[in-house]
Amino acid sequence: MKIGLDIMGGDFAPQATVLGAIVAYNSFSAGQQLVLIGDKEQTVNILQENNFNPDHFEYIHTTEVIGMGEHPAKAVVQKPNSSISVGFKLLKEGAIDAFSSAGNSGAMLVGAVLSVKTIPGVLRPAITSIMPQLSGALGILVDVGANADCKPEFMPQFGALGSLFAQHVYGFDNPRVALVNIGEEEGKGNVLCQAAYPLMKESKLFNFVGNVEGRGLFYDNAEVLVCDGFTGNVILKFAETFYEVTHEKGINDSFFKLFNYEQYGGSPILGVNAPVVVGHGISSPEAIKNMVLISKKMVESNLVDKIKLAFQ
Amino acid sequence: MKIGLDIMGGDFAPQATVLGAIVAYNSFSAGQQLVLIGDKEQTVNILQENNFNPDHFEYIHTTEVIGMGEHPAKAVVQKPNSSISVGFKLLKEGAIDAFSSAGNSGAMLVGAVLSVKTIPGVLRPAITSIMPQLSGALGILVDVGANADCKPEFMPQFGALGSLFAQHVYGFDNPRVALVNIGEEEGKGNVLCQAAYPLMKESKLFNFVGNVEGRGLFYDNAEVLVCDGFTGNVILKFAETFYEVTHEKGINDSFFKLFNYEQYGGSPILGVNAPVVVGHGISSPEAIKNMVLISKKMVESNLVDKIKLAFQ
Repeated sequence: MKIGLDIMGGDFAPQATVLGAIVAYNSFSAGQQLVLIGDKEQTVNILQENNFNPDHFEYIHTTEVIGMGEHPAKAVVQKPNSSISVGFKLLKEGAIDAFSSAGNSGAMLVGAVLSVKTIPGVLRPAITSIMPQLSGALGILVDVGANADCKPEFMPQFGALGSLFAQHVYGFDNPRVALVNIGEEEGKGNVLCQAAYPLMKESKLFNFVGNVEGRGLFYDNAEVLVCDGFTGNVILKFAETFYEVTHEKGINDSFFKLFNYEQYGGSPILGVNAPVVVGHGISSPEAIKNMVLISKKMVESNLVDKIKLAFQ
Repeated sequence: MKIGLDIMGGDFAPQATVLGAIVAYNSFSAGQQLVLIGDKEQTVNILQENNFNPDHFEYIHTTEVIGMGEHPAKAVVQKPNSSISVGFKLLKEGAIDAFSSAGNSGAMLVGAVLSVKTIPGVLRPAITSIMPQLSGALGILVDVGANADCKPEFMPQFGALGSLFAQHVYGFDNPRVALVNIGEEEGKGNVLCQAAYPLMKESKLFNFVGNVEGRGLFYDNAEVLVCDGFTGNVILKFAETFYEVTHEKGINDSFFKLFNYEQYGGSPILGVNAPVVVGHGISSPEAIKNMVLISKKMVESNLVDKIKLAFQ
């Protein structure tokens, strides 16, 4: 098994990414290999500065970088030698089994769809993130930004993708799936939610438990919280702020610590034909390590095959 | 000046509402009168139990109550003797200068639009709420639920309504107005935000400062945060949860205390021809008091006339 990591992606790359790779290495078993994609010389220098044997990794040298502010679709096409574009080429060819990057997240989404492509039957890939619960469990929020505008029929699919992810990667049995809405009863909400609710209720692919309001997002109402990518992105970034604020204020509480993105490292893109994980732009080495580990877990659990089967 | 209060509205009515009225009374000057609308006998009994002279208030006796779960439009029409319906009748006739209730918020919105009506030029009334800022300032979030689905042209109007409210009721000078979005640059976001941004930039009615993401909602980027009512409602209820969680955990921090809805008491409905304030269903006496005081401040500041002038 080969896990590809973009060494050039993220605000603190390549330093943070290489240090993250070193920590991740300790979790790798025999037959599992980390493939570092980016400037090889820089990478090896950082490894040597940290007294880490460069032979533990494989390298794919690249000469271009897609910047955080670049237009995703243009950048992927115009920079074929960028670490992101090369990563997806390797993923498409099967030279690596998963690819992750804390770089331009739009470019990661475009790259995934253009290279390994959307799984047949999936209308739109979705990005997931963690929504910690007061019980200590980890809720899955989906979509958190891949689809700013959604059609009702996307929503049950997000539910199915989230449910399969929650089962196979996080080990939840028959995860409960809820629709994020502004009222509890069926019929409440905006036009999207009003139309999505009956579709989700009818779906045989997951255990739908109804609507959950903004006030219920922490309260263990569901393992999977489905929303359009606009709402999900606002919720995700707002929730991260609460971690930041509590952290800055020195409030030492186990629940608020669960909001530290570093622990999860990245947001998987679900619904494409290979494991792809997008990291936070400000990823630290700890976050990079966890991004690599979640992509490894997606490979180990055969999540993509399970999604393909469900959407047949 | 006569301020109307629905004594029957809210989960803890009439006990919490009457106790709230007692506390609010201390902030009233000569010539300012609180009008209690609801079951007079119950109200007077509670006042006497609390050794408060019933002569300090005026009373309008009503015989029906609109329940929290009732269909707003149906209930307003079918229960003309309910405290909410009677309150709006008095408001329309000019017998009271403001009306507030912690009862069925949908019925309050419908009642406002049917009775005092929308201000000419205003496409849709909007509900505001407070979004505390780390500086200690109070941001204004608008809309928080009146309009689950919005057209782009609603958004600059929400900006104007929020800006006037921030100026005249909260005393902000030239308040900054931002659009809640999932990216910082113009052109980012869902179709609604992409179309609303240029309209907001062009508006002469307020000081537009661009997009603000979920991560920036606390960080003093703007005094007024504009969003569609679906997103606003999710943000508002989610933010309240953080207060609840910190409160339950005994975390004693001045910033998180700002999220206690009790301090603001209610959400004004802006864009109708009279001051109307909707309270939280779980309103405590403290919340009721503050709901009454915000409606009084809306009267004192002539906010409705200022909105009429701006939308001429």
